[in-house]
Amino acid sequence: MSKSNRQMRLGAFLMQTGHHVAAWRHPDAQADAGSNFRHYVEIARLAEAAKFDAIFLADSSGIRSTDQGSLARSARSVFFEPLTLLSALAAVTERIGLIATVSTSFHEPYNVARKFASLDQISGGRAGWNLVTSSSRSEAQNFNYDDLPEHDTRYERAAEFHDIVLGLWDSWADDSFLRDKASGIYLDTDTLRVLDHRGPHFKVRGPLNVARSPQGRPVVVQAGASEAGRALAARTAEVIFVAHQTLEEAQTFYADIKGRLPAYGRDPDDVKIMPGIFPVIGRTQAEAEEKFEALQSRIDPVVGVSLLATVIGGIDLSGYDVDGPIPELPQTNGPKSRQHLVVELARRDKLTIRELYLRIAGARGHQQIVGTPQTIADQLQQWFEEGAADGFNIMPAWLPGGLADFVELVLPELRRRGLFRTEYEGTTLREHLGLARPARGALPAA
Amino acid sequence: MSKSNRQMRLGAFLMQTGHHVAAWRHPDAQADAGSNFRHYVEIARLAEAAKFDAIFLADSSGIRSTDQGSLARSARSVFFEPLTLLSALAAVTERIGLIATVSTSFHEPYNVARKFASLDQISGGRAGWNLVTSSSRSEAQNFNYDDLPEHDTRYERAAEFHDIVLGLWDSWADDSFLRDKASGIYLDTDTLRVLDHRGPHFKVRGPLNVARSPQGRPVVVQAGASEAGRALAARTAEVIFVAHQTLEEAQTFYADIKGRLPAYGRDPDDVKIMPGIFPVIGRTQAEAEEKFEALQSRIDPVVGVSLLATVIGGIDLSGYDVDGPIPELPQTNGPKSRQHLVVELARRDKLTIRELYLRIAGARGHQQIVGTPQTIADQLQQWFEEGAADGFNIMPAWLPGGLADFVELVLPELRRRGLFRTEYEGTTLREHLGLARPARGALPAA
Repeated sequence: MSKSNRQMRLGAFLMQTGHHVAAWRHPDAQADAGSNFRHYVEIARLAEAAKFDAIFLADSSGIRSTDQGSLARSARSVFFEPLTLLSALAAVTERIGLIATVSTSFHEPYNVARKFASLDQISGGRAGWNLVTSSSRSEAQNFNYDDLPEHDTRYERAAEFHDIVLGLWDSWADDSFLRDKASGIYLDTDTLRVLDHRGPHFKVRGPLNVARSPQGRPVVVQAGASEAGRALAARTAEVIFVAHQTLEEAQTFYADIKGRLPAYGRDPDDVKIMPGIFPVIGRTQAEAEEKFEALQSRIDPVVGVSLLATVIGGIDLSGYDVDGPIPELPQTNGPKSRQHLVVELARRDKLTIRELYLRIAGARGHQQIVGTPQTIADQLQQWFEEGAADGFNIMPAWLPGGLADFVELVLPELRRRGLFRTEYEGTTLREHLGLARPARGALPAA
Repeated sequence: MSKSNRQMRLGAFLMQTGHHVAAWRHPDAQADAGSNFRHYVEIARLAEAAKFDAIFLADSSGIRSTDQGSLARSARSVFFEPLTLLSALAAVTERIGLIATVSTSFHEPYNVARKFASLDQISGGRAGWNLVTSSSRSEAQNFNYDDLPEHDTRYERAAEFHDIVLGLWDSWADDSFLRDKASGIYLDTDTLRVLDHRGPHFKVRGPLNVARSPQGRPVVVQAGASEAGRALAARTAEVIFVAHQTLEEAQTFYADIKGRLPAYGRDPDDVKIMPGIFPVIGRTQAEAEEKFEALQSRIDPVVGVSLLATVIGGIDLSGYDVDGPIPELPQTNGPKSRQHLVVELARRDKLTIRELYLRIAGARGHQQIVGTPQTIADQLQQWFEEGAADGFNIMPAWLPGGLADFVELVLPELRRRGLFRTEYEGTTLREHLGLARPARGALPAA
């Protein structure tokens, strides 16, 4: 049983056909998931019936691979733009949170503020924004750049972008709109705030043309693990998605982030840290391993090497022996910490290129657990109770089966232990996550 | 009866509480429409049950007024971002087209191409993009500008933006995706086209990360009536929304546009011209006039003068006598032709400021008809049969009542005359409009 009444937060991280790179070849996988809206309706309703806090969509502002060999074998080149998809799902769900990734590098803050504010209104307070800076040159080339802006420049822009969006979300008060048909007064102009932002990256006057969010403001989510990413997250994030391989790494990160919060006038409970977990679940260990092998055996080496190259920062591995060691890698302008974790994993376990891509094919640097409902619940409970996590972002290996397994097999075990809800306590994403409704104008200190 | 089997195209142009500026004060109006998703679900379903070709949403990337007096009395300051709203409505409708306005001045073409392509997938081929360039300084100031770019610059950017979006929509072929689980080949890379656009305003590499649209490409809609607007529309538009006061004006515009098409290798049927119509409908003429007066009498003069100032190009009229004549107006950088139409109306009928704002309070320069189902159907039929229109964009005075009146009273009359469908003939917006499915790569000549 749980040592307290503290409840795990659970996100359902949906990746088209599933997180495993060969997921689409699974006999039960929905191979056309990236263009099949009914598939997402089915999954969203499954996650909502199971009382997940939110569904979560990653994003890329371009195709993920330009290498012809892996491109031909990848199910991840075409997919729905996340905000468009979540807006549609908002209309066919009632309670589950809706978290979409939108890059600060390739959008304008006024548009992003509007869209999330609109989604929050449409969904009755269920919107969350996963703020990312993007990290690939191929994306940048779709937006007038020859190359990606520098890491630090991207984070400076992201920080300013965040503050503008929050300022715009506070344009109106909860009670700005009187709508008095008799007097003809629709709104109280005294409550209006015009942001009039002028900074190094943006000039944005405001106000926003969307009413204040039902949950005060949409929830801000982040995933950056670099120093710049942690500093931004400690000041601004309300949820942090993160990748860890071991309990110790997760505890160190958790303590680091929670320890940074007081400097920004924030409490530990103001930020929920949710590592990604890639579970493959069997009623027995043997059944779990069989399910995993059914996926692993379907990885084409062309795809495996290409995936590994992407995870470690866009480096070309095609000239190296797939059964030889990982080469020395230069510093890159990519997601430094993810690269670091993966290379450390290879060194620690002395892996070949093939062995390494097989290790990360599913979880891409996140914690992978192939086991029974008991062993998976044990590990989630340990991380949850020993200062490593406030909850988890569940990454189903294939869809819909991988999510259905978690719902049918692991959730009952977590509930038996008193670790996860049986019914939603509230109606908004903030309420699900146990985050306070923000007061208007209480902007994070710059 | 109709002289042929040619059918009218009808759009339902939805404006929060309705098109009349005092609509929100109508006893039956949904005063919180701009923040009420259920309101839009009700209206979209009403329009779909009536077999409208599409619902249409205008847009502004900012609040429409910064004058405190009119701002306090306006129901148009907060509203849903159109693509977010239409994505949600896609999930709760089955057949009706979904046309959203998105400005080329304040977005990136890759994002716009993605979002409409996603909406088209989600809706099963029902998306349309109303391409506008935006025309207000207050919007520009939300996007790093001190002032609006010049009219011609905006149109140059719009033309390049359009061509990029269409090029991105053609990234994939209809049959690019093999999804062969056995061989592991997901897609045919030989069918992929990388745009690699490099122009004066944009560098966009591509390809798009969304599969080809169910209707080939989303439908492109435009509303520009200036020379630059007409030139762009003749080359690129598939639907043109336009404002006219008289049959003669409408005929002249219609002939001008259709006459420009052959130069671009296009046929008259490739572009549907749909003037806006603002109907107020009564079973008798007296009842119609009573309904209209119920709205007109609710216009606060502060709102009326401010609305007029906006329509004629952002000029300050507050120093002039409301019962005096319209002053001489300078050239502006705004929507020239709309301004011209309204000023011509004032001169022709020798109107005061008050009389003029009362004239445009509903229709804002579009054709206003206060009458019985027969008189309204007569006029629509005349415009439709005498070379002025291929259909109409219906602008309900207030919602939901104004749309319900059109559906219950005018549509049966149009159907009796054989002018409007009783059932959808197809499933996509293109099929509703009678537009051919575009061949891939048949880009308009530059």
